Amino acid sequence: MGWLSLATALTAIEAAAVIAFALSGVVAAARKRLDAVGVCMVAGLAAFGGGTVRDVLLDRRPFFWVEHALWLWVLLGLCVGAMSFLRSRHLSPTLRAMQWPDAIGLGLFTANGTQIALVEGMPAIVAVLMGMITGTFGGVLRDIVCNEIPTAFADHRPYAICAFAGGWALVAAQALQWPGEVGLLLSIVLATGLRAWALRTGFTLPRWEADEPGPPR
Amino acid sequence: MGWLSLATALTAIEAAAVIAFALSGVVAAARKRLDAVGVCMVAGLAAFGGGTVRDVLLDRRPFFWVEHALWLWVLLGLCVGAMSFLRSRHLSPTLRAMQWPDAIGLGLFTANGTQIALVEGMPAIVAVLMGMITGTFGGVLRDIVCNEIPTAFADHRPYAICAFAGGWALVAAQALQWPGEVGLLLSIVLATGLRAWALRTGFTLPRWEADEPGPPR
Amino acid sequence: MGWLSLATALTAIEAAAVIAFALSGVVAAARKRLDAVGVCMVAGLAAFGGGTVRDVLLDRRPFFWVEHALWLWVLLGLCVGAMSFLRSRHLSPTLRAMQWPDAIGLGLFTANGTQIALVEGMPAIVAVLMGMITGTFGGVLRDIVCNEIPTAFADHRPYAICAFAGGWALVAAQALQWPGEVGLLLSIVLATGLRAWALRTGFTLPRWEADEPGPPR
Repeated sequence: MGWLSLATALTAIEAAAVIAFALSGVVAAARKRLDAVGVCMVAGLAAFGGGTVRDVLLDRRPFFWVEHALWLWVLLGLCVGAMSFLRSRHLSPTLRAMQWPDAIGLGLFTANGTQIALVEGMPAIVAVLMGMITGTFGGVLRDIVCNEIPTAFADHRPYAICAFAGGWALVAAQALQWPGEVGLLLSIVLATGLRAWALRTGFTLPRWEADEPGPPR
Repeated sequence: MGWLSLATALTAIEAAAVIAFALSGVVAAARKRLDAVGVCMVAGLAAFGGGTVRDVLLDRRPFFWVEHALWLWVLLGLCVGAMSFLRSRHLSPTLRAMQWPDAIGLGLFTANGTQIALVEGMPAIVAVLMGMITGTFGGVLRDIVCNEIPTAFADHRPYAICAFAGGWALVAAQALQWPGEVGLLLSIVLATGLRAWALRTGFTLPRWEADEPGPPR
Repeated sequence: MGWLSLATALTAIEAAAVIAFALSGVVAAARKRLDAVGVCMVAGLAAFGGGTVRDVLLDRRPFFWVEHALWLWVLLGLCVGAMSFLRSRHLSPTLRAMQWPDAIGLGLFTANGTQIALVEGMPAIVAVLMGMITGTFGGVLRDIVCNEIPTAFADHRPYAICAFAGGWALVAAQALQWPGEVGLLLSIVLATGLRAWALRTGFTLPRWEADEPGPPR
């Protein structure tokens, strides 16, 4: 039973994904002209929000950012650095460049969250949902604080759906008794790959008819 | 002591109310043109959000949607069905029709939430607040994610206040040692009845003077 | 060890700060023309939200407003009184007058939250963050429900940063083995003093260049 190594892997995974999401928070905050506090808070929500919501729902403690408090310092430094960089006006390239670490972060967080929920004995659908929450709710909280409708729910580009697929891949791998590392890898590759493919092809989900009359208030 | 039967009744109640709230989420999401993921997420928040917030505050586990994970599948099916139906342009009748199951859901969730808090030994006012949260926070989260001020707080139609009254009815019934089922029924009828009456008569709470000057920013 | 007296002090502190924050919620709700329910809910979020989020993150129970449920009645009375007062059109003086109790509340909540997190054995940076959350998230939740970007993150006036400084003062005082009351007092004075100084001088954090082009959507 490689639980220990698996736990280490999960920690490494969660750490690796933090930075990509934190940067997405910095850019979102910069676009809204938040102050330094807002930038750090939004970056922190984007980076740790998904995992924290998952842990609150699963009643798990300590949180990643409590157990590895060093990461709060890393985040602080990251925000200071990113803010000074962004003030030198290279936002748009940053944003495009960020799509790729973000896609990797999505896969990493999804596999991590699903795995944790399965270890906690959650039913398959709940575990997949927890994976999606881990992967997407950082961005959801980021957008809510920035007073926008979460892009994960509104931009018609597959995002949470990639997490959904990746989560089920992990569930299937475990049902098939595959070694844990294989399932994790498969889940990460599937979620990240689907997202990357969607970014490349510009594939979008079916839309509402633009001219459909909204219901009266 | 009919705790067991009472527990069963509570579960049935919570299940019955889920659908009405989920539909309110689907319609709210459709109005905002969210994508399929957003529709399911908002429907899920509307349906399970109130009870989940209550359980997090009371530190109760497992959540309704974890213990009865089948409901997540029901929700998924409901959303897919509702989306295809809504695309055929019958939003407004749907919305009007929804006011009644929503009123019933309000009563059911309120009684359920208040009862659970009382069983957990909460003070009366806290139990009533938990009932209100169970009944209204699904819609509050739905509106926050849709980037709107929660209608429960802003539309001046009695909604949370009906829950407030229903919650106190249950507290009173227990103080009077009435059988649990009677108290629950009384609470449901009062909250739902008040809401239905308000919908019929169009009664509104006192408003702020429209011309009142807002304070400077 | 004066833990008991310290605990009493903390309770008194939390109670004292509740009113200032509740009033800020009433004014924010009035500006948005929320109804009576919305005013009470937003006031409650502003008053108890920060401490409740902290307790959920630290997995502490019971909440302040559950252990001292009487405060929910106080809040209710406060809202009713404030609403009738506000209808007589004295919003702006109220708002200016409120800056001072709010500054005191910030210091009190910060010291309280940081102390609680330290007692729970959190790392220093986490304890300071919990102090900031206790001091600022009531207002953050208030603004999110009112569908605004949290002022604590966006108005470029030092607010959370004052809490940040106050939290570190408490951590330092404990590291230096100073008596608990001294550290608490120091923390309160520093956070509140910094905020008061910022209000007096109108000091603001560095801004983004106004003409900086936002990244493309």
